[in-house]
Amino acid sequence: MTWTGNDGIMAGATEREFVLTVDGHQVPGVYWEPEGGADRLVMVGHGGTAHKKAEYILTIVSLLIGKGIAAVAIDGIGHGDRKTREIGAQPNDFVDVWNENGGTATVLVDWKAALDFIESEVGARPTGWWGLSMGTMMGLPVCANEPRISVALLGLMGTQGPNAKDLIANAPKLSCPVRFLVQWDDEIVPRDTALSLFDLLGSTSKTLIANPGRHQDVPTPDFEGSVDYLDRYLGKV
Amino acid sequence: MTWTGNDGIMAGATEREFVLTVDGHQVPGVYWEPEGGADRLVMVGHGGTAHKKAEYILTIVSLLIGKGIAAVAIDGIGHGDRKTREIGAQPNDFVDVWNENGGTATVLVDWKAALDFIESEVGARPTGWWGLSMGTMMGLPVCANEPRISVALLGLMGTQGPNAKDLIANAPKLSCPVRFLVQWDDEIVPRDTALSLFDLLGSTSKTLIANPGRHQDVPTPDFEGSVDYLDRYLGKV
Repeated sequence: MTWTGNDGIMAGATEREFVLTVDGHQVPGVYWEPEGGADRLVMVGHGGTAHKKAEYILTIVSLLIGKGIAAVAIDGIGHGDRKTREIGAQPNDFVDVWNENGGTATVLVDWKAALDFIESEVGARPTGWWGLSMGTMMGLPVCANEPRISVALLGLMGTQGPNAKDLIANAPKLSCPVRFLVQWDDEIVPRDTALSLFDLLGSTSKTLIANPGRHQDVPTPDFEGSVDYLDRYLGKV
Repeated sequence: MTWTGNDGIMAGATEREFVLTVDGHQVPGVYWEPEGGADRLVMVGHGGTAHKKAEYILTIVSLLIGKGIAAVAIDGIGHGDRKTREIGAQPNDFVDVWNENGGTATVLVDWKAALDFIESEVGARPTGWWGLSMGTMMGLPVCANEPRISVALLGLMGTQGPNAKDLIANAPKLSCPVRFLVQWDDEIVPRDTALSLFDLLGSTSKTLIANPGRHQDVPTPDFEGSVDYLDRYLGKV
């Protein structure tokens, strides 16, 4: 559980990398904090084949920083610096990588360790989740089992994929306010499975936002607006 | 086609009533303009059993005024000052009132006359539509056939009700940006019919926003946010 010293810069923020040892495996992560500190935190989960510092993740982090919110990201199982083999060469690669690297159970302990580490270093603050696609495969179980998370941005996922059972089992346990993004013509997540997953979410405050287009075509207003949503709810009772 | 002289006040705005003669019938309406004038206009369509100055309509108008946008509303067929009998005593009252008073065809000429009148009096300006439930039964055909309308807020309606055929026929003709509100547990508009109507909308820029709850339970952030949406798109190419 340590900072690597491999620090970087982002406009208006400091960027510090860390590595955690969790159940004997290594979890590389990065923490961004606005200059002057932050009294709120968002955990940012990347999508399949991406990593903790993918370009669109940095876009979200920049928007969070602009609102004075700190952010933490880790590489998901089998992704980024935890990659064990290429994903995408074969149709079933993603499913295999997910299952070979511990699946939902490992995701849960990894993210809990990351939040524990940041809170031990910087203190506990109102905390949210941002994650689409694999970011929801990770985030829905994490948010349903982590009472420290008080608001969630999820979406681009349904009652399908390698951890469908875990999503279906955890969805009713979610209780925090949640915004859920759906792409109406998603070629990876069939529309009916996305609507079914939204239907299962236990939160009384939940909003589905759907736009035409394929998996990666979330329109800019709703992509950027996702951060406005977290900003509005974070820290409110 | 004349102002009635029956004027009122609203915080930050003037309120002027008018009556139009359209195809031999009378159409009572009201026009609100922010103090100092407005360079944008929204046509506001009320829901079933309501009227042009219903409380929630005045809430929307107040929000528009606050953004410097003028508003115009008319009583829908068989509603408000055009009421021919009570609606609600019998289950089929609303359907009968809609059909007895000319249905979609009359709605189209009434709203065209209202926009013609306001433009002749105040000049042409970028124009939007706001209307839920019966406000969409009116608004979807109006927006699909009125090139002067450049953005629409619709919802709480589906491929059902007394003018289902007109909605299904007009939806693919809609081309302006549209935000479409759905209540996930709507007891009046079955969810699948609402999703089907959204699916049929021809606009390339269209966003569905769904929340749990019954027909009239649109959460405040999305109710008030509907005006932010119109404000953002009105007047943009």
